Amino acid sequence: MKSYKKMSREELHRLQEQLNKAYVEAKGKGLKLDMSRGKPSAAQLDMEMDFMDVLISSSDYKTEAGLDTRNYGAMDGIPEAKELMAQMMGVASAEQVIVCGNASLSIMYDMVSRCMIHGIFGNTPWCKLDKVKFLCPAPGYDRHFAITQHFGIEMITVPMTAEGPDMDMVEKLTAEDESIKGIWCVPKYSNPQGYTYSDGTVRRFAALKPAAKDFRIFWDNAYAIHHLYEDEQEEILDIISECEKAGNPDIVYEISSTSKVTFAGGGISAIAASKANLDEIRKSMTVQTIGFDKINQLRHVRYFKNLDGLKAHMMKHAQIMRPKFEAVLKVLNEELGGLGIAEWTNPKGGYFISFEAMDGCAKKIVAKCREAGVVLTGAGATYPYGEDPNDSNIRLAPTFPTSEELAAATDLFVLCVKLVSVEALLESSGQMEKRAC
Amino acid sequence: MKSYKKMSREELHRLQEQLNKAYVEAKGKGLKLDMSRGKPSAAQLDMEMDFMDVLISSSDYKTEAGLDTRNYGAMDGIPEAKELMAQMMGVASAEQVIVCGNASLSIMYDMVSRCMIHGIFGNTPWCKLDKVKFLCPAPGYDRHFAITQHFGIEMITVPMTAEGPDMDMVEKLTAEDESIKGIWCVPKYSNPQGYTYSDGTVRRFAALKPAAKDFRIFWDNAYAIHHLYEDEQEEILDIISECEKAGNPDIVYEISSTSKVTFAGGGISAIAASKANLDEIRKSMTVQTIGFDKINQLRHVRYFKNLDGLKAHMMKHAQIMRPKFEAVLKVLNEELGGLGIAEWTNPKGGYFISFEAMDGCAKKIVAKCREAGVVLTGAGATYPYGEDPNDSNIRLAPTFPTSEELAAATDLFVLCVKLVSVEALLESSGQMEKRAC
Repeated sequence: MKSYKKMSREELHRLQEQLNKAYVEAKGKGLKLDMSRGKPSAAQLDMEMDFMDVLISSSDYKTEAGLDTRNYGAMDGIPEAKELMAQMMGVASAEQVIVCGNASLSIMYDMVSRCMIHGIFGNTPWCKLDKVKFLCPAPGYDRHFAITQHFGIEMITVPMTAEGPDMDMVEKLTAEDESIKGIWCVPKYSNPQGYTYSDGTVRRFAALKPAAKDFRIFWDNAYAIHHLYEDEQEEILDIISECEKAGNPDIVYEISSTSKVTFAGGGISAIAASKANLDEIRKSMTVQTIGFDKINQLRHVRYFKNLDGLKAHMMKHAQIMRPKFEAVLKVLNEELGGLGIAEWTNPKGGYFISFEAMDGCAKKIVAKCREAGVVLTGAGATYPYGEDPNDSNIRLAPTFPTSEELAAATDLFVLCVKLVSVEALLESSGQMEKRAC
Repeated sequence: MKSYKKMSREELHRLQEQLNKAYVEAKGKGLKLDMSRGKPSAAQLDMEMDFMDVLISSSDYKTEAGLDTRNYGAMDGIPEAKELMAQMMGVASAEQVIVCGNASLSIMYDMVSRCMIHGIFGNTPWCKLDKVKFLCPAPGYDRHFAITQHFGIEMITVPMTAEGPDMDMVEKLTAEDESIKGIWCVPKYSNPQGYTYSDGTVRRFAALKPAAKDFRIFWDNAYAIHHLYEDEQEEILDIISECEKAGNPDIVYEISSTSKVTFAGGGISAIAASKANLDEIRKSMTVQTIGFDKINQLRHVRYFKNLDGLKAHMMKHAQIMRPKFEAVLKVLNEELGGLGIAEWTNPKGGYFISFEAMDGCAKKIVAKCREAGVVLTGAGATYPYGEDPNDSNIRLAPTFPTSEELAAATDLFVLCVKLVSVEALLESSGQMEKRAC
């Protein structure tokens, strides 16, 4: 296909006319589709219903050690759930894990909140400091940025690469600026790119020498086992072990959950960290809760048994999700490949595709889609403060719609990308012509 | 029985000798019992197991409005769970309710945390103030006091009466001191007394005119339906309605949970408050969570259906708990009645009996019990900072042990009360004699 950028104004005008016509037709179809969030589809949820049969009235509710999961106790999780989550997160030992409630987001909120009010290891609570900053690799996860914004923490954007965040910048900034207290990471099948941090990146994280003694890496291993392929699975190093080896055992909090393994909002979550970190967290937790829902912890253990059980289960998810990712990517390739107006990632896992439009086009594309009935993640959402400096990134979430809906939504999406791009090219070439006059 | 206080020193010495002998025998029995916390017994947990059968693989997981509880959404609770919790809490409308996760303690921690960092209705966040104080009716719930202590909030003890907290003191202090930002209340079947606030007390709470605009009543309605008797049920006025009527709609946060209805740690919790309060809470919640475990919310709704279902269920709990309360009270009456060395409450609901020993005796009694193998709630736990100024209050939690264990534990308890009281009386009469010389 001919690159749009090589087209004459006349060609672009003709194309614009065709695209506009197609867009009017598309609007007429009255679509009403939501591709905004990384939600599992009904088919994914239906496939795992026997999960609900492992704990019924006749079941035994005791842990291996004899603790009744229906009563108070085991504040930091039942031992077998710690073991399961340790395996899922790729952490060396269950001792490094606390199992919590239904959401890793709440854990991360709590961790930041705890740092704000109580501080880490006796350091000044962040709320008593004039300035607290976080590094935010971007495009990234909007809900991470929402937490730091909510607590009044200043966010500094760090560019993302296929290997992970720009580590030169991370090392330089953390070494220089004591007010930088944390960094948000989604190290595996990153949201929204689907990138997996390279071993080199993980090791550079483990070896960081930040000016702030109470600097923490918030390592949100949300997609630890969320592969799309049986034979092309990406893996990361265990950050906890790497930090230990680097003499930096306390620098990282790792977080994960089964929200996209069992049920969204009905899973279990976990923190992994050094003993010193976990002891400090447990001290606060004692005040905060008598314990999390241990019945759901036990349900997970009884159903999955171990990492093999989890992995087999995730391949069932993959079978449903993979065709959706491939369908979207096929349309993108066929319709936008070679046009020189967009790039996108080709993830092997996770829940998203990251799409890069021409600068200044993302908001317009999202608006055009919405006008025709397809809701995408808001443009800008993948950047701190919701402000994408280039207005180019769009997060695509292909999992929730059915295949038919997805086809219709993607067709509309590429149409809008073309239309907005042509308009942008016409405008810029118009300005160039004016300047030439 | 003859009052110990009317005994001669000689009589007391003789008694002491008998009691010491009995105590040595008791120690020899090698008891190992825990009466320290308000935990449901295994029999209570066993009786409700069909609760686990209402959501199995073949069930429908959609709410009445068609929302799939297995997926994200409904951050502030599914509508039918709001309705159920509104009925349970005696709140006028489901609109006044947010349904949360498994623990009301976490809600209360979060609320205080939110006030600390973000403040209420645009007022200065509490962490930015030099001094923040809470009123703490005591004897009260140790975990409430732990939260305020954890956040560095100064606690002021307010005496409890059978009608509720000393309202003259509450009115005076809140009117005078702008740094008083809250009060902890367990208004029904209070922990540890089992007192229920009178209508007059509730109305005086609703009509408070605190100096602090961001003063809040933390109304922990933990035992809303936890009656011990079918025919002697205490009720309280709906604080939310009373506050509305008094022109004070925003002054109260009400909290409750089903931890002692279904499973301890496996229940659901709720906040009830004015729309303005709930809107502010929702604003933070949006950052904190995508939503709580809606499957467990639905399970509660399907199982109980409505208040009648809840009430019928609670009578099953009562049948198991009532004999335990009555057995303890019988021993207290028979063994300590008329001795002039102790008083105790006679609760019609809740999980505890509040026991008042002679001043200066509580710690010694608890220690003596522990030495012989019976763990009670630590003396002082019912007061802010764990410091009972009279060292007289002991919380008895009769629910967890079996009847046999409870009989053994109570026998030991009254023996220790007698022994420590005799020692105290001998000591004080000894001092009086010395002074007389």
